[in-house]
Amino acid sequence: MKILVINGPNLNFLGIREPDIYGKQDYKFLLSMLEDYAKEKNFELETFQSNHEGAIIDRIQQAYFEKVDGIVINPGAYTHYSYAIHDALASVSMKKIEIHISNVNERESFRHISVTLPACDGQVVGQGLKGYLLAIDMILEQ
Amino acid sequence: MKILVINGPNLNFLGIREPDIYGKQDYKFLLSMLEDYAKEKNFELETFQSNHEGAIIDRIQQAYFEKVDGIVINPGAYTHYSYAIHDALASVSMKKIEIHISNVNERESFRHISVTLPACDGQVVGQGLKGYLLAIDMILEQ
Amino acid sequence: MKILVINGPNLNFLGIREPDIYGKQDYKFLLSMLEDYAKEKNFELETFQSNHEGAIIDRIQQAYFEKVDGIVINPGAYTHYSYAIHDALASVSMKKIEIHISNVNERESFRHISVTLPACDGQVVGQGLKGYLLAIDMILEQ
Amino acid sequence: MKILVINGPNLNFLGIREPDIYGKQDYKFLLSMLEDYAKEKNFELETFQSNHEGAIIDRIQQAYFEKVDGIVINPGAYTHYSYAIHDALASVSMKKIEIHISNVNERESFRHISVTLPACDGQVVGQGLKGYLLAIDMILEQ
Amino acid sequence: MKILVINGPNLNFLGIREPDIYGKQDYKFLLSMLEDYAKEKNFELETFQSNHEGAIIDRIQQAYFEKVDGIVINPGAYTHYSYAIHDALASVSMKKIEIHISNVNERESFRHISVTLPACDGQVVGQGLKGYLLAIDMILEQ
Amino acid sequence: MKILVINGPNLNFLGIREPDIYGKQDYKFLLSMLEDYAKEKNFELETFQSNHEGAIIDRIQQAYFEKVDGIVINPGAYTHYSYAIHDALASVSMKKIEIHISNVNERESFRHISVTLPACDGQVVGQGLKGYLLAIDMILEQ
Amino acid sequence: MKILVINGPNLNFLGIREPDIYGKQDYKFLLSMLEDYAKEKNFELETFQSNHEGAIIDRIQQAYFEKVDGIVINPGAYTHYSYAIHDALASVSMKKIEIHISNVNERESFRHISVTLPACDGQVVGQGLKGYLLAIDMILEQ
Amino acid sequence: MKILVINGPNLNFLGIREPDIYGKQDYKFLLSMLEDYAKEKNFELETFQSNHEGAIIDRIQQAYFEKVDGIVINPGAYTHYSYAIHDALASVSMKKIEIHISNVNERESFRHISVTLPACDGQVVGQGLKGYLLAIDMILEQ
Amino acid sequence: MKILVINGPNLNFLGIREPDIYGKQDYKFLLSMLEDYAKEKNFELETFQSNHEGAIIDRIQQAYFEKVDGIVINPGAYTHYSYAIHDALASVSMKKIEIHISNVNERESFRHISVTLPACDGQVVGQGLKGYLLAIDMILEQ
Amino acid sequence: MKILVINGPNLNFLGIREPDIYGKQDYKFLLSMLEDYAKEKNFELETFQSNHEGAIIDRIQQAYFEKVDGIVINPGAYTHYSYAIHDALASVSMKKIEIHISNVNERESFRHISVTLPACDGQVVGQGLKGYLLAIDMILEQ
Amino acid sequence: MKILVINGPNLNFLGIREPDIYGKQDYKFLLSMLEDYAKEKNFELETFQSNHEGAIIDRIQQAYFEKVDGIVINPGAYTHYSYAIHDALASVSMKKIEIHISNVNERESFRHISVTLPACDGQVVGQGLKGYLLAIDMILEQ
Amino acid sequence: MKILVINGPNLNFLGIREPDIYGKQDYKFLLSMLEDYAKEKNFELETFQSNHEGAIIDRIQQAYFEKVDGIVINPGAYTHYSYAIHDALASVSMKKIEIHISNVNERESFRHISVTLPACDGQVVGQGLKGYLLAIDMILEQ
Repeated sequence: MKILVINGPNLNFLGIREPDIYGKQDYKFLLSMLEDYAKEKNFELETFQSNHEGAIIDRIQQAYFEKVDGIVINPGAYTHYSYAIHDALASVSMKKIEIHISNVNERESFRHISVTLPACDGQVVGQGLKGYLLAIDMILEQ
Repeated sequence: MKILVINGPNLNFLGIREPDIYGKQDYKFLLSMLEDYAKEKNFELETFQSNHEGAIIDRIQQAYFEKVDGIVINPGAYTHYSYAIHDALASVSMKKIEIHISNVNERESFRHISVTLPACDGQVVGQGLKGYLLAIDMILEQ
Repeated sequence: MKILVINGPNLNFLGIREPDIYGKQDYKFLLSMLEDYAKEKNFELETFQSNHEGAIIDRIQQAYFEKVDGIVINPGAYTHYSYAIHDALASVSMKKIEIHISNVNERESFRHISVTLPACDGQVVGQGLKGYLLAIDMILEQ
Repeated sequence: MKILVINGPNLNFLGIREPDIYGKQDYKFLLSMLEDYAKEKNFELETFQSNHEGAIIDRIQQAYFEKVDGIVINPGAYTHYSYAIHDALASVSMKKIEIHISNVNERESFRHISVTLPACDGQVVGQGLKGYLLAIDMILEQ
Repeated sequence: MKILVINGPNLNFLGIREPDIYGKQDYKFLLSMLEDYAKEKNFELETFQSNHEGAIIDRIQQAYFEKVDGIVINPGAYTHYSYAIHDALASVSMKKIEIHISNVNERESFRHISVTLPACDGQVVGQGLKGYLLAIDMILEQ
Repeated sequence: MKILVINGPNLNFLGIREPDIYGKQDYKFLLSMLEDYAKEKNFELETFQSNHEGAIIDRIQQAYFEKVDGIVINPGAYTHYSYAIHDALASVSMKKIEIHISNVNERESFRHISVTLPACDGQVVGQGLKGYLLAIDMILEQ
Repeated sequence: MKILVINGPNLNFLGIREPDIYGKQDYKFLLSMLEDYAKEKNFELETFQSNHEGAIIDRIQQAYFEKVDGIVINPGAYTHYSYAIHDALASVSMKKIEIHISNVNERESFRHISVTLPACDGQVVGQGLKGYLLAIDMILEQ
Repeated sequence: MKILVINGPNLNFLGIREPDIYGKQDYKFLLSMLEDYAKEKNFELETFQSNHEGAIIDRIQQAYFEKVDGIVINPGAYTHYSYAIHDALASVSMKKIEIHISNVNERESFRHISVTLPACDGQVVGQGLKGYLLAIDMILEQ
Repeated sequence: MKILVINGPNLNFLGIREPDIYGKQDYKFLLSMLEDYAKEKNFELETFQSNHEGAIIDRIQQAYFEKVDGIVINPGAYTHYSYAIHDALASVSMKKIEIHISNVNERESFRHISVTLPACDGQVVGQGLKGYLLAIDMILEQ
Repeated sequence: MKILVINGPNLNFLGIREPDIYGKQDYKFLLSMLEDYAKEKNFELETFQSNHEGAIIDRIQQAYFEKVDGIVINPGAYTHYSYAIHDALASVSMKKIEIHISNVNERESFRHISVTLPACDGQVVGQGLKGYLLAIDMILEQ
Repeated sequence: MKILVINGPNLNFLGIREPDIYGKQDYKFLLSMLEDYAKEKNFELETFQSNHEGAIIDRIQQAYFEKVDGIVINPGAYTHYSYAIHDALASVSMKKIEIHISNVNERESFRHISVTLPACDGQVVGQGLKGYLLAIDMILEQ
Repeated sequence: MKILVINGPNLNFLGIREPDIYGKQDYKFLLSMLEDYAKEKNFELETFQSNHEGAIIDRIQQAYFEKVDGIVINPGAYTHYSYAIHDALASVSMKKIEIHISNVNERESFRHISVTLPACDGQVVGQGLKGYLLAIDMILEQ
């Protein structure tokens, strides 16, 4: 089984960016955590991070040709306005799970809306980095 | 460890109500699935279902006195307007996870809003009945 | 044939509450009018009134098990915000008719919206207590 | 007793237009059904159909001079924006009942609003062609 | 000098329609008042009333060919939504004055908006039938 | 003189729930404070607390039959959406005062709206538990 | 007969401020035009201009004690947000006419709303300085 | 093959109305251009212009009985609010193309909305009178 | 103890302005009522009324220098839009209580909003002139 | 003559993505269709597809330096929010035609808005892949 | 060269009002800082502070007659609603720069809107008291 | 000291794009102006322009590692919707100043909103290219 984990803009700055909200562990730590989990659960892992909306769409399309079995995606700020990523997700039929690290109850109302969720099969919110593992479980077990 | 699973209005009609959206397994099945999981994971389980907003608030308050360690709640339609359940959840400090069975991308825009989520620590969406187990994991493992 | 007439909050205060809008006849009068009609039209009548949103949902669900043929419902103020009653009505497949005693063209804009109507098969508005009989006819004759 | 039944735009296309929503019976059938009912209930019937907003207003005003006792009106799409028909209905004091054939819970939000209802005494929704007879009853019996 | 006075829907029901708002004098009275004024002020008067939006547009266009010097228009309810009358008024270059009999501060918020005013040169509000004369003065004297 | 003090959802959790906003004194303390005041001011006191919207409506209706002279009500979260409690309050004619413990200038915009206030005669905001006594004064002295 | 003409903020800058919209004639010219008209029509004229919202309210209240027969007011930008001037106008019962020099169809949507109009008896729009004379006529002749 | 070209309100004023937006060629020119095209492309042409919303609906319905193969419609200002024309177009199944002469990016936001487009199969915008020929091509060639 | 009572625009017209809403007692009466209360409760009273937004801000600032212990303010219409008065109240730290004479459930929706309340410590609504005394009590007793 | 055809995000997935909406022919087919048309109509063709908003802007700017005579652009999902592409199109003066394959009357309301259209000269909607040829014609023939 | 610095409501309370947002330096300090700068840069300085909207307008108009070369204005809370100050600024043609001391990202959404900015030539935000000097530079150097 | 100047989409088209709004000087001119200023003020300058949202985020992140002391950013159209650039700016702690060349009072309302400003420390608006120098001063001098 082959799972692709996509991280959107600024998630490579984990541990640097507002650590009291997003935690102190950095993107490297997330990658090694994911790799350990891939070994433990015996699936093929690919990871991708980009600040570029277009590059995320390219990667989703490539996953179609590579016959990836499931995508775990944290679209970062693109969650709130990228209809183009939504369309890319909607155009491919493998399992897709959206994940957000924190349960952001922020003042800014745009944070309450996900335009990408309707193209996904499920969502995990507010479980820290561990949410990635839960999202992977959702793909592996179904 | 003691976990309380609360189901809101119409969830006792699982299997009866729109089975193509909410699945064919009924509320009884959900209960036995939860009980099996309690044995497997070795935690104390309490379950509660009510169509009454006030009864759900009463049960949340009772959990405070019973020293429940975590609440998994599917508030059903109350998700979208019960500020009173929100306040009840906000007034108690144990871990609280909101769960929705399907990733409802329905026409009705009120379905996109959760007024209870801001009082919870996390959320699982779109994983069917299995989502309850994932929500329990979120409490057990953190 | 078995018909259930549900009256929501404050309808037991008919005749007491704003009689120039809702008429001078009280809830008792409505009940006897309905009973007379049941005899005349030869159907089995059940009536229910509650100020409790949850109790109304319970009653709708019970109607499912009692194999009621049709529900006439005046949801009172719940008309305007009870998505939970909407869901309860939507989960059962018998004929459901919504009824409002007066054609309320009130200033308060929330009065113009019914969130329960989409789960019903028809509606009668502005015919006074007689509207209940018209609603019953809609069930009997179709 | 004299009753006028007004049908607005496109209702002469009954049976032609989206028969799965509006039924398969055509406008002719509706007319003969109304005529039969006039004989049975012994009232004088006048019917009118027009696609012209102005012609509908003219007809409402003419009814004032003809001393019509009640108007049953299905304003079709004008329901949603003709303040002019609203004003015409409001300017005459006989009984007026609005009727809609289906309980249209359509996606288009403009379908949820009636600007003509506030000038009417009652409304019947979702009872098919039979709704016209119910509307006539509302006039006859009060 | 040639002046055309256009009255929109339901204004032929002056004196009949809500006399406490629109006054007790009828449309006939308005016409004779206008004719008297034409004699007094020595201008050529044409009057037109229609409930038909299209007929009002036709009449405005005809005025263009007849070389009318000014139009006084009370668009009635069309004031609030007839972009087509707006366009007709905008397409002709003679002086155009909008007139409303009463200063309608009604509850219905649509009454506060005029879509036809932007195509006019001026407006008179709340002066009763006399407002027509003031509007004529605005054309005569400029 | 007979005064009924109604407390809505979660107010039995006073002292437990966010003590920096709602104070450290608990519901018991409020009750004894009210009883002392009843003795001091020589009126008959009844108190009621419920998390159930329907139970609050039942209690308001019961007050009608018990000939209560005034109601002091803190509707808690129901303040913001219970049109049913509004209707119950509007249907009874004794003096009704709404009370809120803190002047909540919270981020959540729904906190700024009271749907129950229009059915009351007055309001006290931001005076802590003492606000209940002020509300009682408003009933006693008028 | 005694008429008070009030000009709001920036109207003393007539002729200076955007002359292609508001004309080239200055405030002085307006005053002499009004004085000439007072002589011609034989009424007592008082004029007042202020950039101060409070001073305009003071002047309206003073008019009450001076038994002014009518007020012509151009509230300038206060038209669009001064509920305080609205309340002052509403509190006095003499005839009040609102006047605007140009028919401002400006881009800025706040220009389309008058919060002071509901407290007036009539309005003249788009007649240049002459509109003041028309407004005076409305007071004199009624 | 039979094609009907419908022009809505004020389009008979082409060349007269705002020639810098809508061009200098008049409605007659458009007709002869269409006739030339009918000869060249060998199809049967019918044309219709009306300022009357109802007449446009009548004409669409007549096209149904005449077995017209396609309709090209420029609804003029009715584009923005005629749900009745929308319903007429939706009730007939031949090919329908909406056309607008200019790409109107006007200030007035209502110009940005077409309520008739959802009932059409395609649209041409901003190609001047030539857009009519393009719209005809869309019908001929599919 | 030193208390300042500020009354905003038009409150000097108490008894004159809409007496059925605001009562028949005039501003003078209010002043003497306040003076009597100052003697009875033994506090130093200052009163201030102005129609000028700026003068109210000046007075609030002066109170800071005079070491006033509490402000009771009825901002009149400024309640609904004076962010400047809000800022003035927020900049001084003594106790501030907002008071409104009537529980205005008026049609005009702007009446439902107070922009000054967030800068105050409490509010009294709907108690007539007596509300001023209650507001003073809130300052004296805390 | 030199024409550039730009396709935005996910249009390289034509034939893969929702074929019942966007057709079964793939992006390759579109390219060969365009090339055939270039030969037939004798113009120089350049094509470009990218999922990157920035790359589309780069390409529009490059077209400025290459002296392209016209751009046909299908901005895909960027249609609905890329003000940056809008600005790029607005900054170059050659002819620009927007094209959409289907007449998408989808539920999602963001689909109804084009932020790029105001920077274009025309639009073709709902003609399938053939719409590209129509858009090219609009450039060639004007 | 002559520059006028206008400070709106509550800015005389600098150092007193929320010093953690607006800094600890008081209005006096600002004045001396401005005077020093006038000497250093050799321009004529005038300063003005008022809590009165009308007084600010008066001062702007006076500047017109005094031939001031530029205005630096911090309108305080009037920034958000004073269309009258906007109009005053728009009516005079010297250079005008708006300045705000802090980059207020406050919860209150009205803080995000400036109605006076459109009448200015530039703006400085978030530079503390130094922003006044930057604004002066903008006038001096252009 | 090291300062990075970032220019967003279409700013490389300065001098080409709408020169009457953005001036006639091109991007090259801006660069040499910045370089001259770097020499004069003795700071290290880096400049960057891209039409790619992702590339701008990459550059901001790189600045974090290069220990840049301040960023001057003109986000172009991304100002209005790039929450991703906002997040990038918010994640780095050096001084950040937003700059806009013209005081755009455009019709399009989206131009009035900056989603990136809340992540910046200050803003300069409407000073032409010189605004970049003012923004640099804000970094240098604080």
